[in-house]
Amino acid sequence: MQQGSDGFYAVIPAGGVGSRLWPLSRAASPKFLHDVTGSGQSLLQETYQRLAPIAGEDRIMIVTGDAHADAVREQLGALPEHNLVPEPEPRESTAAIGLAAAILRRREPDVIVGSFAADHLIRGRAAIALAIGQAIRAAQQGWITTIGITPTRPATGFGYIRTAETIEIARSGLALGVDSFVEKPDQETAMQYLLSGDYLWNAGMFISRADVLLDAIGRSEPELRDGLEQIAEAWDTDRRSEVMRRVWPTLKKVAIDFSVAEPVAADGKLLVVPGHFTWDDVGDYGAIARALTGGGELEGIETIGDPASVEALSSNGLVINRSGRTIGVIGMWDVVIVDTPDALLVTRGDHSQQVKQLVEQLKLSHPDVL
Amino acid sequence: MQQGSDGFYAVIPAGGVGSRLWPLSRAASPKFLHDVTGSGQSLLQETYQRLAPIAGEDRIMIVTGDAHADAVREQLGALPEHNLVPEPEPRESTAAIGLAAAILRRREPDVIVGSFAADHLIRGRAAIALAIGQAIRAAQQGWITTIGITPTRPATGFGYIRTAETIEIARSGLALGVDSFVEKPDQETAMQYLLSGDYLWNAGMFISRADVLLDAIGRSEPELRDGLEQIAEAWDTDRRSEVMRRVWPTLKKVAIDFSVAEPVAADGKLLVVPGHFTWDDVGDYGAIARALTGGGELEGIETIGDPASVEALSSNGLVINRSGRTIGVIGMWDVVIVDTPDALLVTRGDHSQQVKQLVEQLKLSHPDVL
Repeated sequence: MQQGSDGFYAVIPAGGVGSRLWPLSRAASPKFLHDVTGSGQSLLQETYQRLAPIAGEDRIMIVTGDAHADAVREQLGALPEHNLVPEPEPRESTAAIGLAAAILRRREPDVIVGSFAADHLIRGRAAIALAIGQAIRAAQQGWITTIGITPTRPATGFGYIRTAETIEIARSGLALGVDSFVEKPDQETAMQYLLSGDYLWNAGMFISRADVLLDAIGRSEPELRDGLEQIAEAWDTDRRSEVMRRVWPTLKKVAIDFSVAEPVAADGKLLVVPGHFTWDDVGDYGAIARALTGGGELEGIETIGDPASVEALSSNGLVINRSGRTIGVIGMWDVVIVDTPDALLVTRGDHSQQVKQLVEQLKLSHPDVL
Repeated sequence: MQQGSDGFYAVIPAGGVGSRLWPLSRAASPKFLHDVTGSGQSLLQETYQRLAPIAGEDRIMIVTGDAHADAVREQLGALPEHNLVPEPEPRESTAAIGLAAAILRRREPDVIVGSFAADHLIRGRAAIALAIGQAIRAAQQGWITTIGITPTRPATGFGYIRTAETIEIARSGLALGVDSFVEKPDQETAMQYLLSGDYLWNAGMFISRADVLLDAIGRSEPELRDGLEQIAEAWDTDRRSEVMRRVWPTLKKVAIDFSVAEPVAADGKLLVVPGHFTWDDVGDYGAIARALTGGGELEGIETIGDPASVEALSSNGLVINRSGRTIGVIGMWDVVIVDTPDALLVTRGDHSQQVKQLVEQLKLSHPDVL
């Protein structure tokens, strides 16, 4: 077991278009490759840099579509080639994370894997290190552990984790049991969750020994686990591409929430470590506006892109300028303007969930800009 | 005197950028050259075609900037070259209309001239012909006559004409005297004007014998009249460009409202013929939206440009697409989106007067897109 990282390996499944962020995100250029907050770093780059001090720069594995592998290599110059797992086609998170776990376990039998979305926004370096560190300790004792975010508002756009009793981890302090996972609530329910103190946001982070994770996958999806092991067995040999091409397309598409998190929680075997850091899945433009203000009201127009390109009067909102054009805005409240060379979106922060619906319409009328 | 047109000649001063219609209108491509309503015709072309049946196609004179002369020739294929008066630089409406009147009077001493803005929107072919016909009759009797539009709403964006008593024109029916011209009113005053029935919108149309008009100019601005006569005397000779170059830049810049309309009205010598047609000076995007709906509420998004380029949800307003990009609009009310290759405007119909203020800011920050 490697000393500095306690045998920990971070896995970043980098998939998902992020269609609520159209026209910024496209099939050919998904959300994780974008600098959505104007920080100068893409969400993937931020995720990698956040995990590097925890796992070690050479202990972060990226699972991504073949089509995006070159973009990932370009954005992450330090990524060793053996830490890149290209998928011929997307097959959901159990296959992506499970394959990484199976490959890593063959390389390093006691490895602990933690999976972290490539396209979430997190602020609070010390707090995230603390939560992951605690989750690694629980994983070393054989637990599957998730990190749940302490809610700061009655968010309706996130899934929640209902916590159970405190559990003492052998020689490793405390965590909470997971009672259950609950879907995105309505406003009233979200407020009840917030006030009760029993709920955390589900940030989709899972930390466990690789073999424990694969056993959990095997219990709910035995064929899927067999397929993953077949590929992993061939991965570091010259049979990789032949086996991958043959087996990968046969793997069941299932989110790790359903294959692992929910059944393990139902057995009372899932732990959650509360994380006290700023987290957002940046699911829509409203989230980007929140990220820019720390949750407060926007004062005037915030620009991502060249601020000098925007001239505004009596307005408030978010302008993302990827076209380089001059943009005039007058008398708009909570406006969201996303300007790209071939497509323009004009909406409001409080309607930004509907972008997905617009993208559905565009699939019929303008597939060329998706 | 020519039979069909009763000696009438239409003069169209085609100047003015129309900065409230930025980014559609630019210094290099002013409002009158644009098809702002999606009719397939520019405002200038519509004006020309409206006047052709009244004056005769070969009796319409255009006064425009040197920089726009070629665009005017291109848009008005039928325009004889002797009906085009290019100005080396803009010197306001008295110089433009006065020069046309002076040139035409030398060619045709009894000519009656009527001046009509190049960039107004008018619907109602029969009613405009009736009003101009009546004004020509008054002009034949030596009157300077304007056409005032019967107001249909308490508009604050137009100037008004306060009418006086009915005046009998010798052998030519009736018109109204003009008491005075009043500036754009506030909302309450506009409502009083509308309810009183004593006010008409000032559409800037003036009809009179050319010599009567020039005498009126000469009374208020004698030097300006002398300059105009000097140029007119040389116009149809080989000295035209020499005299124009020398004299034109010395002419006083004054609107015909101040040099002619107001002083003549103050003397009780100005008539007004009420016009019962749809008229708008298309001063801003709100006016374009009104023009598309006949004054009613927009139902959904109206598009000028390719309607298939716009995909909208829960929105209402106006999209002018000159960039050819795909435009998504969600949850926007009364929105105005004007999309051009190098500049984008997002505003609301009820803020569209402020575009001029935005353009003032852009003069400092982005003169390249003006």
